[in-house]
Amino acid sequence: MLFGTLEAGGTKMVLSVGNEHNELLEQASIPTEAPGKTIPEMISWFREKGIAALGIGTFGPVDLNPASPTYGWITRTPKPGWTDTPLLPPMRDALGVPALIDTDVNAAALAEWQLGAAKGLKSCLYVTVGTGIGAGLVIEGRLVHGLVHPELGHMLLRQEPDDPAPDGFCPYHRGCLEGLAAGPAIEKRWGKKGYELPAGHKAWELEAAYLAQMCMNAVCAFSPEKIILGGGVMQQKHLFPRIRKRTQELLNGYIQHRAILEGIDDYIVEPGLGTRSGATGALLLARQAAR
Amino acid sequence: MLFGTLEAGGTKMVLSVGNEHNELLEQASIPTEAPGKTIPEMISWFREKGIAALGIGTFGPVDLNPASPTYGWITRTPKPGWTDTPLLPPMRDALGVPALIDTDVNAAALAEWQLGAAKGLKSCLYVTVGTGIGAGLVIEGRLVHGLVHPELGHMLLRQEPDDPAPDGFCPYHRGCLEGLAAGPAIEKRWGKKGYELPAGHKAWELEAAYLAQMCMNAVCAFSPEKIILGGGVMQQKHLFPRIRKRTQELLNGYIQHRAILEGIDDYIVEPGLGTRSGATGALLLARQAAR
Repeated sequence: MLFGTLEAGGTKMVLSVGNEHNELLEQASIPTEAPGKTIPEMISWFREKGIAALGIGTFGPVDLNPASPTYGWITRTPKPGWTDTPLLPPMRDALGVPALIDTDVNAAALAEWQLGAAKGLKSCLYVTVGTGIGAGLVIEGRLVHGLVHPELGHMLLRQEPDDPAPDGFCPYHRGCLEGLAAGPAIEKRWGKKGYELPAGHKAWELEAAYLAQMCMNAVCAFSPEKIILGGGVMQQKHLFPRIRKRTQELLNGYIQHRAILEGIDDYIVEPGLGTRSGATGALLLARQAAR
Repeated sequence: MLFGTLEAGGTKMVLSVGNEHNELLEQASIPTEAPGKTIPEMISWFREKGIAALGIGTFGPVDLNPASPTYGWITRTPKPGWTDTPLLPPMRDALGVPALIDTDVNAAALAEWQLGAAKGLKSCLYVTVGTGIGAGLVIEGRLVHGLVHPELGHMLLRQEPDDPAPDGFCPYHRGCLEGLAAGPAIEKRWGKKGYELPAGHKAWELEAAYLAQMCMNAVCAFSPEKIILGGGVMQQKHLFPRIRKRTQELLNGYIQHRAILEGIDDYIVEPGLGTRSGATGALLLARQAAR
């Protein structure tokens, strides 16, 4: 049986067909333009694939309440043309298959929890650090939605004393996590893109400091059993040991658990599924929709 | 059928007997001294009550993993004599009844969710602001434990620019939420206890600012459907409208949900069970232990 997956991003839409063994068989990418152009293109790509269901992991904010008349709509986004736009309904209706939607990061968290770095645990936090910062969350064996869905990237952080741009760059909150540590913040602060900065650049100690604050606050807020960091910025692998060390320093022995005191290399980790977390999660959503 | 409840606090132990209608029938309070003195006193109080099970809501950190050999032990605490001390095991064994333990704040969250301000919802955050700041959390219909349990009071916050003591007073983390906004921080910063400061004192705008940061970060971290604020400091009822307004200002329209945009008076609220949340939660734990 075949399933369709969509990773809806602000820059591109990644479409896949996968099977019941959680294998991704075929993939395509379409630039994210106006909904009136991009949504029909995606429908058209899926139409001849014979999929039994569709799973969508999307950028947000998105309405995830199945009882809401706007379930599966993008609600409010800086992405031009996409505010208050139905995403799931037109695709589900045109393709005539059941469909489920979640945030892109919840999809990735679901996949990492069922098949990846958090397999066998009851909770995990998946964070992507890239153009934005978003997080998906599994707690007590359930994907977390709540009132809306987590928006961890907009958590407020303490300004680091050696930050040359401590006010931050988020258009809504200035110095929230995303405004201080997402890719565009790195670029605006240092005048270069992250991948242009050498590993020894002071940008990275600062980046690690903010991401460690995030890890500490996550540990304090909901005590995840694993923290998984993905996304473009985390391709700077040298960040991992710095974030781990700094998180330990910040927690300062308060949380008495060997996962943090002794096993932090295995607590703050890379995605077990590499770059396939999101698509695999969308596939798991599609399989769930088919049941 | 009768059940025993214990609210274990750093200052006093509150013992109750309740029934299957969630009514608390009889209560006693014992000062928290050395475990070797206080635990036998509590056992002695319960011994003739004919309880069928015991529920404990305790200060922490506490080991809540039922599979752990130290389940029901206080692990590490500034409270002298209580570090690495079994609390549940000696009481359960001496009384010969099944027993369950959770944090005091998880017990309160459980009660508020099943019977109080969050009844009928799938998630809520219960925060107590007093000598310390602690939080209990229900998400997707489950009490959250995770790696350890939430320690929301130790989340790092942004220093408010008009704070005369922005470094904070937490012995572990200095300027975490507890170090900036718990009762002792108010007293150290202003030289008076909170209840001695008039409602017009600038202490309260600052207090509301930090608690609003906490609310914002909770909304961003796990999107609770209700935030319930209890504890001694929240007896200053004038804090509620200030915290609500400031939370809205901080979120700045980013979270598009009418609970926050229009219904915040019903989103950040007082405990529905007044000061009985903790004991009622311990009673619910005892009833669960009996099943």
